[in-house]
Amino acid sequence: MRNWLLPEHIADILPATARQVESAKSAMLDLFRCAGYELVSPPLIEYVDSLLSEGDDALDLKTFKLVDQLSGRQLGLRADITPQVARIDAHLLSGRRGVTRLCYAGSVVHALPAGLMSSREPLQVGAELYGYAGIEADEEIIALMLEALTQVGVQGLRLDLGHVGIFRAIAAAAGLSHAATRELFLALQGKDVGAVHDLAATLAEPYRGAMIALTELYGPVDVLERARAVLPALPGIDAALNQLAALGEALKGQAEVGFDLAELRGDDYHTGLVFAAYAPGWSEALARGGRYDNVGERFGRARPATGFSLDLRDLIRILPERDSVRGIRVAAQHLPQAAEEIARLRAAGEVVLIDYLGESAEALYCDRELLPADSGWQVVAFH
Amino acid sequence: MRNWLLPEHIADILPATARQVESAKSAMLDLFRCAGYELVSPPLIEYVDSLLSEGDDALDLKTFKLVDQLSGRQLGLRADITPQVARIDAHLLSGRRGVTRLCYAGSVVHALPAGLMSSREPLQVGAELYGYAGIEADEEIIALMLEALTQVGVQGLRLDLGHVGIFRAIAAAAGLSHAATRELFLALQGKDVGAVHDLAATLAEPYRGAMIALTELYGPVDVLERARAVLPALPGIDAALNQLAALGEALKGQAEVGFDLAELRGDDYHTGLVFAAYAPGWSEALARGGRYDNVGERFGRARPATGFSLDLRDLIRILPERDSVRGIRVAAQHLPQAAEEIARLRAAGEVVLIDYLGESAEALYCDRELLPADSGWQVVAFH
Repeated sequence: MRNWLLPEHIADILPATARQVESAKSAMLDLFRCAGYELVSPPLIEYVDSLLSEGDDALDLKTFKLVDQLSGRQLGLRADITPQVARIDAHLLSGRRGVTRLCYAGSVVHALPAGLMSSREPLQVGAELYGYAGIEADEEIIALMLEALTQVGVQGLRLDLGHVGIFRAIAAAAGLSHAATRELFLALQGKDVGAVHDLAATLAEPYRGAMIALTELYGPVDVLERARAVLPALPGIDAALNQLAALGEALKGQAEVGFDLAELRGDDYHTGLVFAAYAPGWSEALARGGRYDNVGERFGRARPATGFSLDLRDLIRILPERDSVRGIRVAAQHLPQAAEEIARLRAAGEVVLIDYLGESAEALYCDRELLPADSGWQVVAFH
Repeated sequence: MRNWLLPEHIADILPATARQVESAKSAMLDLFRCAGYELVSPPLIEYVDSLLSEGDDALDLKTFKLVDQLSGRQLGLRADITPQVARIDAHLLSGRRGVTRLCYAGSVVHALPAGLMSSREPLQVGAELYGYAGIEADEEIIALMLEALTQVGVQGLRLDLGHVGIFRAIAAAAGLSHAATRELFLALQGKDVGAVHDLAATLAEPYRGAMIALTELYGPVDVLERARAVLPALPGIDAALNQLAALGEALKGQAEVGFDLAELRGDDYHTGLVFAAYAPGWSEALARGGRYDNVGERFGRARPATGFSLDLRDLIRILPERDSVRGIRVAAQHLPQAAEEIARLRAAGEVVLIDYLGESAEALYCDRELLPADSGWQVVAFH
């Protein structure tokens, strides 16, 4: 009799946490709504061809595969919602020529956990802005991300800004092959300084030195000055550094801003600016995102795109616990006479429980009870 | 380029509907909370052994199977949340001796669609009450179901009451084998009168006549009188008819109540009273449920249990469309000066959009705009 066991890295969300997750989710979706983001809800399963773009090996490994009995084709259980939202922007909302703002909240499933403590069923909440390539769109998205985190109680936020374009400009100028680029990318992403030294060893200067310099170009705003001094003067690098400087300036009032030019932790589809939000005492990012222009191309529509997402299931672990509201007990014998009064109390937001068994205040999680009074009903302290 | 196609019976929920689904879900979860139902959120995937009880062939066919790379064991993508909630009551909350009220809202996935027009990804919302066998618990659950439907705008509700115990009492008294019982059950469930006649042909009287009578015992409250007249006087039947009469009386103020003694449309795990809610113009039930005592036994804890569930994705199709609130446009050039005023408007619930491209009122879905005024900012009609 062990059939109550759950698979590894899979868990129920039990009452105290479930209500907190639900209310944080509602608060975030309300915030997105007021900023003009429309809600979409893509399906849990799709054809694998739609969920994965060619060469996205990381997402492929994360995606559970199923066989569709109706079509015989291979289905995937979504491991990320962002590509689905890009499909919606590209195909279903393709009549819209201007800016489209979309948001979502839903579970994704990972065939393998991302880390030792990671759930295989993150609750992904995010927002995406399509159709505008200007840096103001990134600023809007990052500000929204910071506000979403602040609103649910995260304090002491730190924002890390990076730019995939810097690495790509160096790799392109050095004439690196696709495979070698990928290897170096993974080494930098993993902060594996030794591997970066080894892999960069055959590159010509200044590209060898530039790749190695990337591993040390992190910290407060003076990183950008250092980067201008040590990195080669490539147009892609110059543009990226200017963007980072402008964003850092615009956002410094909302979080402590840092830069990490080897911050390549974005997903494979990120093409430019990438960012992540951190809080004191937690090494993993609470939310992250970046620019992924043209991701909708494989659905027939290339558009500028920027967005962020977070795992609310993970985030909830660092939020302060909220005291649940204690309820009002009504002995079942008072029904149906008390029905109207109960409806009134519930409509006012009170939790009112019918007690069939004569249970204790603790068992019922009640601190008051509804009793008959001379003229009607009264709520009194539970004794 | 067809990778934007979705599998059959799978669809995105697009903005207008998605927001309506989300707000109906919130309203229902709030209603449940105020009635003392605690929220739980079981996982999308579990070991198949946990999701399915032996002999539940219908649920087995509906359940997508996956291989767990971590354990090598077979996983299932949940096709129903009720058995998961029973697991939580039986195992995780087993320290609670009294009544436990739980509710949930989440997607389930069906390998095969339930009907021609059915989605394979219903959004199941429901509430369950464990630990009390009295009919007052069923009354509480049915009233909650009716209120949930009324609250989101369903009008003209009709409630159908049935009782699996009547059929079972006749089958047991007639000495029917397990296999023959199952065949007759399916014929009655499918309202296949010809098949019922054929299958009952070999039964002794009064059981043959009773099985055939069941197919005609539906309609308003006088059905119960007719049933007492034509059905054999078995204790199980008597108790069931008394329960139905009492519930019909208690609930007649909240919906038009009908009875259907061949209403066996509940899931395989239902053991007693079953019920379903209908609305004018829709042949399918909007919500349904029943008593499923002792379902937690296979998780080590047999308890009385009653509950209901509905598919919010399906339900939303019959609800009146709501007018979306039109927003307020702010030209991007007014940032960051207008930032404070924008935050104030959004905090007051207004949708405020930054316009980067100079789009039309229609494209932005705005009817007002924020403009600089002599002393600060003012909202004016969009022209």
